[in-house]
Amino acid sequence: MNNFIFKNPVKIYFGEGMIASLSKEIKPASKVLMTYGGGSIKRNGIYNQVMAALKECTVIEFPGIEANPDYDTLLRAIELGKKENIDFILAVGGGSIIDGTKFIAAGMNYEGDPWDFIIGKAKVPAAKPFGTVLTLPATGSEMNCGAVISRRALKEKLSFHNPEGFPCFSILDPTAIYSLPKRQIANGIIDTFIHTTEQYLTTAASPAVMDRFAEGVLLTLIEKGPGLISAEKPSYNDCADFMMSATMGLNGFLAMGVDEDWATHRIGHELTALHGLDHGVTLAIVWEGTMDVMRREKEAKLLQYASRIWNITEGTTDEIIDNAIARTEKFFNSLGVKTRLSDYGIGEETIEFIRKRFAERNWNLGENGTITPQKTEAILRSRL
Amino acid sequence: MNNFIFKNPVKIYFGEGMIASLSKEIKPASKVLMTYGGGSIKRNGIYNQVMAALKECTVIEFPGIEANPDYDTLLRAIELGKKENIDFILAVGGGSIIDGTKFIAAGMNYEGDPWDFIIGKAKVPAAKPFGTVLTLPATGSEMNCGAVISRRALKEKLSFHNPEGFPCFSILDPTAIYSLPKRQIANGIIDTFIHTTEQYLTTAASPAVMDRFAEGVLLTLIEKGPGLISAEKPSYNDCADFMMSATMGLNGFLAMGVDEDWATHRIGHELTALHGLDHGVTLAIVWEGTMDVMRREKEAKLLQYASRIWNITEGTTDEIIDNAIARTEKFFNSLGVKTRLSDYGIGEETIEFIRKRFAERNWNLGENGTITPQKTEAILRSRL
Repeated sequence: MNNFIFKNPVKIYFGEGMIASLSKEIKPASKVLMTYGGGSIKRNGIYNQVMAALKECTVIEFPGIEANPDYDTLLRAIELGKKENIDFILAVGGGSIIDGTKFIAAGMNYEGDPWDFIIGKAKVPAAKPFGTVLTLPATGSEMNCGAVISRRALKEKLSFHNPEGFPCFSILDPTAIYSLPKRQIANGIIDTFIHTTEQYLTTAASPAVMDRFAEGVLLTLIEKGPGLISAEKPSYNDCADFMMSATMGLNGFLAMGVDEDWATHRIGHELTALHGLDHGVTLAIVWEGTMDVMRREKEAKLLQYASRIWNITEGTTDEIIDNAIARTEKFFNSLGVKTRLSDYGIGEETIEFIRKRFAERNWNLGENGTITPQKTEAILRSRL
Repeated sequence: MNNFIFKNPVKIYFGEGMIASLSKEIKPASKVLMTYGGGSIKRNGIYNQVMAALKECTVIEFPGIEANPDYDTLLRAIELGKKENIDFILAVGGGSIIDGTKFIAAGMNYEGDPWDFIIGKAKVPAAKPFGTVLTLPATGSEMNCGAVISRRALKEKLSFHNPEGFPCFSILDPTAIYSLPKRQIANGIIDTFIHTTEQYLTTAASPAVMDRFAEGVLLTLIEKGPGLISAEKPSYNDCADFMMSATMGLNGFLAMGVDEDWATHRIGHELTALHGLDHGVTLAIVWEGTMDVMRREKEAKLLQYASRIWNITEGTTDEIIDNAIARTEKFFNSLGVKTRLSDYGIGEETIEFIRKRFAERNWNLGENGTITPQKTEAILRSRL
């Protein structure tokens, strides 16, 4: 087991009606920059709940943050926030809005071009205080200090971490899920699933109790996922379990003392940067390839995964692993997500582009750093 | 699922060698009140590691805090801390030392008799900053804001919670377990087990993912417990898993959105207050009685527990529950702990005393408040 340091100061308000708690967390008369996306919060009533809770504050709205939040958009928010001299930022949305807000919150305390701290040219500055109202469970961003930012002009999608950039609080109301398109729910389930496997399907050295927790998230998603997709209006408890699983999947808890992979994410980000695919979809495509190609290094964990998650124990080692990968792919498909590059018209050219980019950057991925650009190519080729 | 608010700001340093990190957390030249117990930390080397890390601080020692820390002892520590005008308190020990230190840390900021905030006569004041070096996994106190204080003169053992009294940091070095007496390891395993069941074997309304996490802790304890007791020197990973499980068992995570019981603890505290029994031992005695008497209210969860933890699915409902209770008792016995009141010479008189005390105080326990003093009597009577 690895040594580790853990700290997560985010205050969570969880449950129906909790949005009203905003008035306890943001001081009256504050000048609040409110960031959100395309306006679904106006249709589902969350916008009105937020405004009611902030009626004693001055709210300056910054709508229009897109999925895979873009550098150019976020620069405009930073400019607005500086000009208005705001006290607090409130993100109302899913992972893209929250990630974008983390960039805005840090960028407001930075004098140069904030792309600097995305590419590691500068330390990420302490963030302007911000909180979140989560509307789409998926990324765990509401309870961690990481963010992923896209820059379409450069075809880039890159992440950063800011230990001084946790949300002050996050409000999680599961009823927000009622009005989500099924496609977004499916993406969120898959994102949570693969956040968990990135911290679980690695080496045999993980703490036993962390393995159990990761398995607990996976089993919950497999149990609750189909109902969330098939029901016209899913049950409150299913929504709550999904929302809680997504938060627990990437708030640092599952990572205690474990080796982490993240290759599937890194490769998936390229597919979004190059082709605009939904993040969850890219993971559902790449994951099977990563497991297939890396099966020897991950063997002990893949066998445990097969047994504890899918109850597969019969056959040779390779048969068990093949079977577990196939069952997982079928689970993704059952959520309505196609899992082959060819399903999205992506072919050799993209694979070659990614291999070259990773080679230029000397990106060797995975928990052991053994996923060379050639192996990345093999992973993608297996998904054609 | 219940609504909830969660916040846990404790910074955790986990792993061998982490005690040296004290020098990063406590400023040089600080005046530190160091609280500890009977001196085992001098025999196992932890005292020296702490002193080396604090060599630039002034350390004022307060040794001699007993198991089930006593009000009278702690008052003397408060007096010393006030007189010396200390900046920081460092607890080096197990749950008793840490609980006692929480009382000291709050008491230093209180002008009256600190027993006031134990019995609810006053709000617990914000604590003096303190950190911990954990030497005995069991109570989870290193990562929560609760504490249990005894007052032998009154034969009382009572708890308090202080949302402004979390440790600033806790250092968890699993090698501290190597030199622990087996009796203390057994107590710690049982304490962790029953902290977990108090948050799990309640209503069917718990989040599915929280059930899985609780089951994860229980399965880990069952897997690792016997080796921790039988091995002359347990493995590092077994120690680390035990230590991590104990912390996760009572740091607020398992309680997210769940109904909580705590009757076994409340009744067990009486056995300690009246007879001086080890805390873990009292839980191992009482738990079977609580499950036996409350089996109808807890039926859904007891069946899930039987199936997922002990793989018991055959028989009538009552047979399954009886079998699961028996397997659990056998597990406690396998750790070297006897589980009947008569094993400790405790009889009718004590049961009658507890029933009367609970009746006077109108204490109705359990997740539904349905464990009347009469039911407490029945629970204890079943354990004679």
